[in-house]
Amino acid sequence: MKINDNFYMKLAIDEAWKYQLLTYPNPAVGCVIVKDGKILAIEAHTEAGLPHAEINALKTAFLTQDSNSILKIKNSSHEIHDFLVKNHNNFFNDCEVYTTLEPCNHEGKTPSCAKLLALLKPKRVIIGSLDINKIASGGINTLMENGILVTLDILQKECDNLLLPFKSWQNKTCIFFKMAQTLNGMIDGKISSQRAKLYVHTLRDKIDLLLVGGNTVRIDKPILDTRYVKGKEPDIFIYSKNKVFPQTIPLFSIPNRKVIISDDLFKILDYKFVMVEGVYNLLDTLKDKIDFIILIVSPKIREGINTSKSLDIDFEILHENYLGDEKIIFLKRKIAK
Amino acid sequence: MKINDNFYMKLAIDEAWKYQLLTYPNPAVGCVIVKDGKILAIEAHTEAGLPHAEINALKTAFLTQDSNSILKIKNSSHEIHDFLVKNHNNFFNDCEVYTTLEPCNHEGKTPSCAKLLALLKPKRVIIGSLDINKIASGGINTLMENGILVTLDILQKECDNLLLPFKSWQNKTCIFFKMAQTLNGMIDGKISSQRAKLYVHTLRDKIDLLLVGGNTVRIDKPILDTRYVKGKEPDIFIYSKNKVFPQTIPLFSIPNRKVIISDDLFKILDYKFVMVEGVYNLLDTLKDKIDFIILIVSPKIREGINTSKSLDIDFEILHENYLGDEKIIFLKRKIAK
Ligand SMILES: [Zn+2]
Ligand SMILES: [Zn+2]
Repeated sequence: MKINDNFYMKLAIDEAWKYQLLTYPNPAVGCVIVKDGKILAIEAHTEAGLPHAEINALKTAFLTQDSNSILKIKNSSHEIHDFLVKNHNNFFNDCEVYTTLEPCNHEGKTPSCAKLLALLKPKRVIIGSLDINKIASGGINTLMENGILVTLDILQKECDNLLLPFKSWQNKTCIFFKMAQTLNGMIDGKISSQRAKLYVHTLRDKIDLLLVGGNTVRIDKPILDTRYVKGKEPDIFIYSKNKVFPQTIPLFSIPNRKVIISDDLFKILDYKFVMVEGVYNLLDTLKDKIDFIILIVSPKIREGINTSKSLDIDFEILHENYLGDEKIIFLKRKIAK
Repeated sequence: MKINDNFYMKLAIDEAWKYQLLTYPNPAVGCVIVKDGKILAIEAHTEAGLPHAEINALKTAFLTQDSNSILKIKNSSHEIHDFLVKNHNNFFNDCEVYTTLEPCNHEGKTPSCAKLLALLKPKRVIIGSLDINKIASGGINTLMENGILVTLDILQKECDNLLLPFKSWQNKTCIFFKMAQTLNGMIDGKISSQRAKLYVHTLRDKIDLLLVGGNTVRIDKPILDTRYVKGKEPDIFIYSKNKVFPQTIPLFSIPNRKVIISDDLFKILDYKFVMVEGVYNLLDTLKDKIDFIILIVSPKIREGINTSKSLDIDFEILHENYLGDEKIIFLKRKIAK
């Protein structure tokens, strides 16, 4: 395997995918710092409000030379930024910084990463995707105006794939479909592992609206809450022609939750970030409306219920993560050429 | 992500999996060389008769200091070995060598990797799995007797998983099951991509015997050859009670091929390396006999034929590779605890 820009960028991409969706409303971004060929940091943006990927990576990299530095206990972007500006001592001059997304140029809740890099003067900054967010963009110019060598077009397609959810929630309502199945496509109704349940509850905490099919509600009588992560409870959209549901179904008893029962999907456009939890029938109905799919696969073969309708969808695999023994596959519908 | 021994060993493991089965009868092995924190080489053993992973990695690492060295055109283990012994000039003294398997200690077709390392004196050798092959083992002793620091127990389970096919063909007949399906478990009869076909033909070139079900032969009338890679044609075992097959089916017209038609599986023990190509019914019949499964997954959802029988098998995912747009998943049956 060649150890080149693609190799280091791939490490940044894989790290960023670990926090995909969890950074909402921010993009998932990864950053790798290499000093004279030595990898010092592989970091990502992990959650909105916490430091950007570049800040996390600069901190980790700086700590490799002095793991007892006071920097260790500085956790906010501002604190890390201020510390590095004062104490960098040209540490980063022979560093190369790989970032999956153009560093932000805007002083918002956090200081600008591009401006910090311009001060720290790494040897080179290697960028995957260009920032499509007009407010934050201009990072490349800031770097170049300050004499920093910038390399573009490294695994740009893979870096763009990483931004797909971000792009969809930037532009409009982002709708993704979550489905769980066995290796042979059987829907056993239950996500078996505790880690998969935890992951689904983490997603529910991030979204604004959870859409489920009426049949699922009638049969499974779900609660659709976030008790494993003690998160905020999303509003519920029950997609159903028949508007009558027993109010004893647990999902109705969650406080401060709005439940919409409707077959008019237009109403979900009032929300920014929507997860659909369903199986093949609902996927077939909604396939033209969704931005991407999260498929949780349990590595077993079971007899069971599978699709009965005519389904014909081609996907591109965006990424896969392990979730303990199970897998999460991020899929994008392939548009016929 | 922490950059530690596990990180580097994982790079070696992933590289080795790219050549899994293709190294038959040798084990799949990966090797990473790190000099003062800088990754110099990520290499693997790629095919029996070609250099071991360590030799490939030592060559690549040495060439990073002088890419025009005459070493570049030395390709056999002996040539690389002799060159490095004469010219290493203590280059490796500050290197750390990560190898998924204990370096071989036996001078066979190739010089011993352990003895070469003992001469080159790297700072440390980090080993995943211990060699179970009595002839080749003893590498750790050779290293330690020569004052080289050895670290064991780094991702040993993952390194042992890598050796699973090797262990099974060392001990007895290795039987693996190859199956292709869509994301939702539908068997569309055809492996769609050219790369997947090429891969299957590469596997057929390595094995001694290809087992297929009688129904498949009657319906698909296959040729079961290796024309895409111009490899050797495996013998065929048609698993069928009914012994009568039209000799016009193309598989019968391949020269120098033995075709066995039988329902007595005991006969396959005459062979060392057996691939079963089939679908769920045959898997259900053979599930207790196979060592691992290779599942080729095409990322699409289709209506189609799926299992009709009662199937209940749990797997562990050993590894996954991409094959262009498709995936190869290496699965091991999970034994109930
Ligand atoms: Zn930033
Ligand atoms: Zn060897």
